[in-house]
Amino acid sequence: MAPTRYLRSSASRDVNPDLDIERKTPSFDVEKLTTILDGGAENTRVRRAVEAVIHSDPVFSREDKYFLSQNESYEAAVKKAVHLKKMMHQMKWSWAGSECKYCNRALGGEVAFTLHNIFMESILALSTDEQTAKWIPLAENYRILGSYAQTELGHGTYIRGFETTATFNISTQEFVLNTPKISAMKWWPGDLGRSATHTVVFAQLYIKGKCYGVHPFIVQIRSLHDHSPAPGVTVGDIGPKMDFNHIDNGYLLLQDVRVPRENMLSRFCEVLADGTYVKRGSEKINYFNMIIIRVKMLSNEVVPTLMKACTIAIRYSVVRRQSELMPGDQEAKILDYQTQQQKLLPVLAIAYAFHFMNEYMNELFSKGYREIKQKNFDSLPELHAFSSGLKAIVTEHSTAGVETCRKACGGHGYSLLSGLPSLYTRLAASCTYEGENTVLLLQTARFLVKCLGAARSGQPVPPSVAYLSAVNSERCLVRDKRDLLQPDVYVEAYRHVAIRVLSSAAAKLQALVQSGAEQHEAWHQCTVQLVHAAKAHCHYHVVKSFAEAVEKLGQEAGIQRIMKHLCGLFALHGIFSNTGDFLHDGYISGDQVDMMTASYLDLLAIVRKDAVPLVDAFDFTDETLNSALGSYDGHVYRRLYQWARKSPSNTKVRAGGKQTSPVCIHQGKPTLLSVLWACTM
Amino acid sequence: MAPTRYLRSSASRDVNPDLDIERKTPSFDVEKLTTILDGGAENTRVRRAVEAVIHSDPVFSREDKYFLSQNESYEAAVKKAVHLKKMMHQMKWSWAGSECKYCNRALGGEVAFTLHNIFMESILALSTDEQTAKWIPLAENYRILGSYAQTELGHGTYIRGFETTATFNISTQEFVLNTPKISAMKWWPGDLGRSATHTVVFAQLYIKGKCYGVHPFIVQIRSLHDHSPAPGVTVGDIGPKMDFNHIDNGYLLLQDVRVPRENMLSRFCEVLADGTYVKRGSEKINYFNMIIIRVKMLSNEVVPTLMKACTIAIRYSVVRRQSELMPGDQEAKILDYQTQQQKLLPVLAIAYAFHFMNEYMNELFSKGYREIKQKNFDSLPELHAFSSGLKAIVTEHSTAGVETCRKACGGHGYSLLSGLPSLYTRLAASCTYEGENTVLLLQTARFLVKCLGAARSGQPVPPSVAYLSAVNSERCLVRDKRDLLQPDVYVEAYRHVAIRVLSSAAAKLQALVQSGAEQHEAWHQCTVQLVHAAKAHCHYHVVKSFAEAVEKLGQEAGIQRIMKHLCGLFALHGIFSNTGDFLHDGYISGDQVDMMTASYLDLLAIVRKDAVPLVDAFDFTDETLNSALGSYDGHVYRRLYQWARKSPSNTKVRAGGKQTSPVCIHQGKPTLLSVLWACTM
Repeated sequence: MAPTRYLRSSASRDVNPDLDIERKTPSFDVEKLTTILDGGAENTRVRRAVEAVIHSDPVFSREDKYFLSQNESYEAAVKKAVHLKKMMHQMKWSWAGSECKYCNRALGGEVAFTLHNIFMESILALSTDEQTAKWIPLAENYRILGSYAQTELGHGTYIRGFETTATFNISTQEFVLNTPKISAMKWWPGDLGRSATHTVVFAQLYIKGKCYGVHPFIVQIRSLHDHSPAPGVTVGDIGPKMDFNHIDNGYLLLQDVRVPRENMLSRFCEVLADGTYVKRGSEKINYFNMIIIRVKMLSNEVVPTLMKACTIAIRYSVVRRQSELMPGDQEAKILDYQTQQQKLLPVLAIAYAFHFMNEYMNELFSKGYREIKQKNFDSLPELHAFSSGLKAIVTEHSTAGVETCRKACGGHGYSLLSGLPSLYTRLAASCTYEGENTVLLLQTARFLVKCLGAARSGQPVPPSVAYLSAVNSERCLVRDKRDLLQPDVYVEAYRHVAIRVLSSAAAKLQALVQSGAEQHEAWHQCTVQLVHAAKAHCHYHVVKSFAEAVEKLGQEAGIQRIMKHLCGLFALHGIFSNTGDFLHDGYISGDQVDMMTASYLDLLAIVRKDAVPLVDAFDFTDETLNSALGSYDGHVYRRLYQWARKSPSNTKVRAGGKQTSPVCIHQGKPTLLSVLWACTM
Repeated sequence: MAPTRYLRSSASRDVNPDLDIERKTPSFDVEKLTTILDGGAENTRVRRAVEAVIHSDPVFSREDKYFLSQNESYEAAVKKAVHLKKMMHQMKWSWAGSECKYCNRALGGEVAFTLHNIFMESILALSTDEQTAKWIPLAENYRILGSYAQTELGHGTYIRGFETTATFNISTQEFVLNTPKISAMKWWPGDLGRSATHTVVFAQLYIKGKCYGVHPFIVQIRSLHDHSPAPGVTVGDIGPKMDFNHIDNGYLLLQDVRVPRENMLSRFCEVLADGTYVKRGSEKINYFNMIIIRVKMLSNEVVPTLMKACTIAIRYSVVRRQSELMPGDQEAKILDYQTQQQKLLPVLAIAYAFHFMNEYMNELFSKGYREIKQKNFDSLPELHAFSSGLKAIVTEHSTAGVETCRKACGGHGYSLLSGLPSLYTRLAASCTYEGENTVLLLQTARFLVKCLGAARSGQPVPPSVAYLSAVNSERCLVRDKRDLLQPDVYVEAYRHVAIRVLSSAAAKLQALVQSGAEQHEAWHQCTVQLVHAAKAHCHYHVVKSFAEAVEKLGQEAGIQRIMKHLCGLFALHGIFSNTGDFLHDGYISGDQVDMMTASYLDLLAIVRKDAVPLVDAFDFTDETLNSALGSYDGHVYRRLYQWARKSPSNTKVRAGGKQTSPVCIHQGKPTLLSVLWACTM
């Protein structure tokens, strides 16, 4: 791979020697691994071509990102979005195409109007053919700009609790939408605060005083001429957030807003002119569309963010030197300390584990999609349970992993210029959106308890829970620390724990019911253990899919070897961090834990050698990383200084801006000092 | 306690009924607990008097905090600092007095020039009487403004690695200070970027070509007349950070900057006119001053921040309702879900545990201080090891706890208006400053290994490690889940683990040395396990000090009862989260873990009843919390909406500010829409 593509952005072609030497003798073909991660050499070619186009265009520059206010971030994202649409039109890149995905990767997702696509997708999913024919062309040609208004100020996860109302008025053939109280305001929808002209509003449908539950309505919220709020509409921005300040998350308050009967999206339910409510078709396909968003989000947003953090922290850790490993030596690279390896290398292993998990899930979902197209919905409950639990553990571990990387960079990891704080604040949101993690894990647990019962009564169960039918092994028989590196050994250990934890939660549940508790009451008394069971199930599948993916790499001996090390590191780190789960029933002994710890520490030293090539293989450009610590050339200190000098906290002061220079913030007083001095008299 | 003091800031005197009912029947005297936490009723009185003064002064208002840019935050902090100094002078409040501490609490620490005090303290600690007589009056009367420049761009923890040089020139009787390379720039010092006129610079002292190590020098960096940088000085702000943007952390580059010989702080070493280097006295007292900063930081900054997060998240969790606990019921308070209790209540227990730990440490240090004043430095190694390890675990668990609280508030916890993101981003820094946590834990471990050896060879050991001399118990003999709530039972369990983990790390260390490894090499191969041992030691002491503090509450039956529950919750949560440590050698069995889990879940339900009174007892004013979710009156949604509307992302748009309204960001074009539309043609 031509290193120039990385160095474009750095001052010169020279690379920090401490980093350079890490690349001299990789144990595997880095370029080959990159193409494997991309899913083929052709994808890599296309991605790099897209990156070349994006990075050469100044409108897409993100170099001032860390200096922008909320308003400036929003404005920048709007400009990028407009420019991107123009470019994609010229390049004939389609929204569905891979180029679009790579544009988003290159820009770190910092473009506006992402909800416009959700708006269109929801219309395609929920509307009749006539409605599609009316609205999609308008949206495609940007005659209207859409958002998607579901969450309310007082209601998120529990959709049945929504309070927004849509009352059908037969005489006018209109729905009248209202926000009856403050907690019913739509709150959080993206692109709503300042941008959108239309939105899909989810509201409780009332006909002749009877409530028919939550339904979707297309509502115009702003003028197409001057962008002012439509009559009865109060709309605005919800204010600063931990991140995503380039998105105008908004609030929406509706007072007697009237829309024609045709504006209720009626693919599954329709209100006739006389007020008759008609239900038709199965919403299952729509349901499938909703859960597939979670799967996409993991591979397009969550795992790449974790990979970026690993790239930054590991490159920095071979440039940063501190203290002596040997008395009298020069200061050592911090990555040569076992404690630093113990922080970063398991996170690197997690990033690879989740990458292969995503590949596996994507296959599973394409298979499911083919079945569902033939009106076979059998796999839906499994796909839902599987994607829910995995969304929860992937976002949870990725978020924690990014923060581990940030902390491992010490003080400089606290500077926004490192790029790490924004990776964290960004990813932290993923634990909440597209389903709150605890809620999702409990949905997985409900599925698991049901399947355990079925498995025990000899009924057939879906593939992902087939392991519940097998008898659980008694003990781990390993006698030597090397045996713990055998995939079948640790996969079996995870399987054992998954069955044990689920079984004990189910046993408690049953005991409570038998002792007279109501089903729902018993359930609520077990939720902590049920969440634990769902996590154990997911963790087992991640280890299993990683081990299977490594098997398939047989063609690439060097890559297979290092991936096997990473898989072992991932598995043993999981045991090392949760030894209690494995010791509880004596499946492994204290002595085996000590062996496992020894193997785990050995692996840290082995993986450390290839740490830099392993993050280079993620193949992020400097522009995408946008980090003073993580650039390919490793000139950390030079870049920190260059970037800090560009900060408004310096430039505005140099410009003597009245507001910011301490010399003149106090009217008339010559210096700050004299003001302070005056305080003492 | 008069609730009015809380409601001053809220729109009305009414309290959200869901929150109000939580306060009807506390199981203990809330006001009494507040005075206990304050260390006496008189302190509570003084604190509230200070808060009344601060909150009634508009200059100290923090209501626009979440909308400020880095420059605006800095300016606001400067204004508050200037105003505060004036006020303290008028009120005759001393810097050492408790009023000053309470001002800082009321203002959430958001004032500038905190380094000016460190500057003065370092002069008092490091200078001769003549130097003190010259510099302290100048600083006290603000004729100069000070900072403290130690950390360098390329060097933090390892002070011997500093690269800044101070070369003595005999002919001019001056030290010439230089920054030989970019990594030698001073980087991070607070108040340096824009404010300070003087700073204490730590540099390698060179006399006649010989290096004498790092010494402190007073250097003027800015003009007293126009605040411009002094000759040879390049100084500026290091740019945006994850938080602390009200502080002007700075960089400093020195080129042949000359200071008179008298500017080397010479209490412990002096350079005579002829270049003779004279060492005198013991630096131990200075060393003691350095470690005491860590102890202060825990009780003044870290633990109160955790208490604020608990207050916000728990109050919100009884106002927020979601889903049905019973089919057909109204939506339930989220704090009534076991999973929500499992997130928040252990964090509440941690906050109380750390509070009592701090009390214990403060006693220990006052005792140590009395001894040291009598030139008895025997307790210094123990105090250093103890404070290092505790700083590490208190900051680590507090930071994690705040983030748990933030996540437990779902989407609204992601809004800056909740107050939670800034509590996290603020506290995250504490894991790095005043000693990086991993480095500190290894210092504690070094002390422990030494003491273990001494204990085993029958030599006397300091009190905090006396438990290493006793024989370790074989098994936990508990047969009933209620017995696990006995303090002596769980304290003993923690003691057992602390000894076991340390012993096994020490054994590995010894084995490596016996097998021929160099001492330092063996040490580095054990650091992961040594860190684990240091944590187990500290965890044991936190549980022990909490249990002892509960014992002392005998006078207050109600408070003692609930504190005993919290202590049990803290201890059992620690076991529940690290069962492997307790199962490893069979000290507890799998069955006992199940009993312990049952007791732990029972405690969650018990503590839940008093959750709101327990956070009310922390007695934070609404102004100090500065949270739309955490106010005393619980009007969460009303306040979120009121505050969001004040956001510049709305006001500037309403004002039609050219930069921010999407209607007019594109020159000449009538609406954003037409621009987008144009992209498709």
